[in-house]
Amino acid sequence: MKDFRSTAILHEKNQLKILDQTLLPSEEKWLKVNDPEILYEAIQSLRVRGAPLIGVAAALGIARYAEDGASLPNIKKHIERLKKARPTAVNLTYALERLAVILSDHEKKNTISIPRQARDDKRSAWNDIVLEAEKIFDEDVDMCEKMGTHGSKLINDGDRILTHCNAGALATAGRGTAVGVITKAWELGRKIHVYVDETRPLLQGARLTAWELSKLNIPHTLICDNMAASLMGQKKIDKIFVGADRIARNGDFANKIGTYGVAVLAKFHNIPFYVVSPQSTIDPSIHNGSDIPIEIRNSKEVSQHWNPTHIYNPSFDVTPTLLVTAYVLDSGVHSVIPKEITVPLFLLKKNIDPSLRSG
Amino acid sequence: MKDFRSTAILHEKNQLKILDQTLLPSEEKWLKVNDPEILYEAIQSLRVRGAPLIGVAAALGIARYAEDGASLPNIKKHIERLKKARPTAVNLTYALERLAVILSDHEKKNTISIPRQARDDKRSAWNDIVLEAEKIFDEDVDMCEKMGTHGSKLINDGDRILTHCNAGALATAGRGTAVGVITKAWELGRKIHVYVDETRPLLQGARLTAWELSKLNIPHTLICDNMAASLMGQKKIDKIFVGADRIARNGDFANKIGTYGVAVLAKFHNIPFYVVSPQSTIDPSIHNGSDIPIEIRNSKEVSQHWNPTHIYNPSFDVTPTLLVTAYVLDSGVHSVIPKEITVPLFLLKKNIDPSLRSG
Repeated sequence: MKDFRSTAILHEKNQLKILDQTLLPSEEKWLKVNDPEILYEAIQSLRVRGAPLIGVAAALGIARYAEDGASLPNIKKHIERLKKARPTAVNLTYALERLAVILSDHEKKNTISIPRQARDDKRSAWNDIVLEAEKIFDEDVDMCEKMGTHGSKLINDGDRILTHCNAGALATAGRGTAVGVITKAWELGRKIHVYVDETRPLLQGARLTAWELSKLNIPHTLICDNMAASLMGQKKIDKIFVGADRIARNGDFANKIGTYGVAVLAKFHNIPFYVVSPQSTIDPSIHNGSDIPIEIRNSKEVSQHWNPTHIYNPSFDVTPTLLVTAYVLDSGVHSVIPKEITVPLFLLKKNIDPSLRSG
Repeated sequence: MKDFRSTAILHEKNQLKILDQTLLPSEEKWLKVNDPEILYEAIQSLRVRGAPLIGVAAALGIARYAEDGASLPNIKKHIERLKKARPTAVNLTYALERLAVILSDHEKKNTISIPRQARDDKRSAWNDIVLEAEKIFDEDVDMCEKMGTHGSKLINDGDRILTHCNAGALATAGRGTAVGVITKAWELGRKIHVYVDETRPLLQGARLTAWELSKLNIPHTLICDNMAASLMGQKKIDKIFVGADRIARNGDFANKIGTYGVAVLAKFHNIPFYVVSPQSTIDPSIHNGSDIPIEIRNSKEVSQHWNPTHIYNPSFDVTPTLLVTAYVLDSGVHSVIPKEITVPLFLLKKNIDPSLRSG
């Protein structure tokens, strides 16, 4: 597998590493991903997070595992297991399905019989898995650039922009989705100010987005989630950009808990609300937001101390499409999710084994 | 001064003590208030907090100081100083003005000349200050009971109620304002469930309201502030009760940061939104919310760690009256702030030295 390095994932000298995002911003520690189990744990515990990135990381993890000599049944097993690491972001399932499709194609063509020892054979399933994972990485970088280019046109000089959670370079293989649009606008010379929701309970805004913006010297102010409304009421927010973890065919989308509230506040205050996302976040099998599975996480993320109290800790909420001003996709800026791209291209090109679609 | 004990303040054997609320729920530590400076620090650092309670505590602190033999000029000085401890809650100014009026009356009647050594004289300014402080305490308890009685009629069996910050027994001398209404409904047998916003940055909901509800065995669920919208979207919130730190003549009101956002969300979801407050929180000198001073607190309350990042930390926001379904006051439930009670009775009864109104 070729070498590459992004903000939160790298592959060098046949070693895959992820930046442990639970330790940011205090510590920048790279974690070796020597087998898919390490990755499973890292995805579940949010060491690696962000809808696009967990898809990319899972694909690279499987590719590294394949290149290290895993058997095809073991590769298949870990593809299925990794799909279950987190339920809401569809990118994880998609990236892994693309690898499953490779295996399925080889089974159909009987090229699966090329022995493991021959995995360097250009025709082997092992080789194709590595190539597909590299492609997933490269596509993500490319989609981020395209979203940045399209989305930055929505940003004017002087804009005060609110963002929620982290949808930046730490959440993708590239420059990010929502934050990628913001950094692109900044690079193009727009004078902007970014308000960053801290994003309870795990503070991805305070820990990750503020860290990214600090590194790029982009002017920003950190606020508690419950302060955004007050800023909007004082007319201090001009535009809102957020990412997405899964977009339904009708445009409803799941994103980090709190996004729905921000969208309602934006509607009330008549502030444009943009969702920035690659095509790999659109799930054509989901008709509307009510069908998106929402992960409920451990109450200890909210509080470790107050035992007599019951705690509710959903990791995501669903925002209906009627609250979205426009979607910034890699294909452009759309007021609704365009019909022609609600089915990702790779799903149209390949004949997927239906059993692989169940995850 | 007579003995009394409420959830967060007590006076016994000539010793005034406050419960240090910054340590809750981990530790229940009572702090001796031996002079007004201790109280000033305790109010500023939120060891004692809640709009009604800081008024009561300030009055009792001055009364204790008077009874301990302070000179009238020193009493006057500390009355003025304590008024400046926190700017937003008007109850603090009111309670202290009531004591200032006592001094002013004595000056006018020339009874100020009764010597300090004669402070036990029933006609002395010292004695009248103590009586007035006792009255402020008793009135607060009484107003809480009345708000509880009026407000509990708004609560039905099965109601799922959202509250923000802490407006309970820890915030008053009595059973509380918003939480007082909830506990009254519970005592009357209503089966209810309370959702508690944790209330960043200082977590008064998680630390204080959840602690109060746990002690009373009232079913409740703690959520992060950014989860309230999702619950409303799922139709899991029937009513919202919050307190207030200052209410303008037109009904706009300041309350803990985040309240405005909750009010907007309530309007969007068509959920009744009630403000519970004693008359001592109404400021007739303020015509609308834009004139209410908003305290900006230290950024370290939001984060002590991320230095490159600018942080905005307003302690309050202002909610316009158009978002309020009704006001639960000690005088009853009102759809608007009634004209006849926008001027507190004590201000009408007494002739206030204009110089004392400036604080």
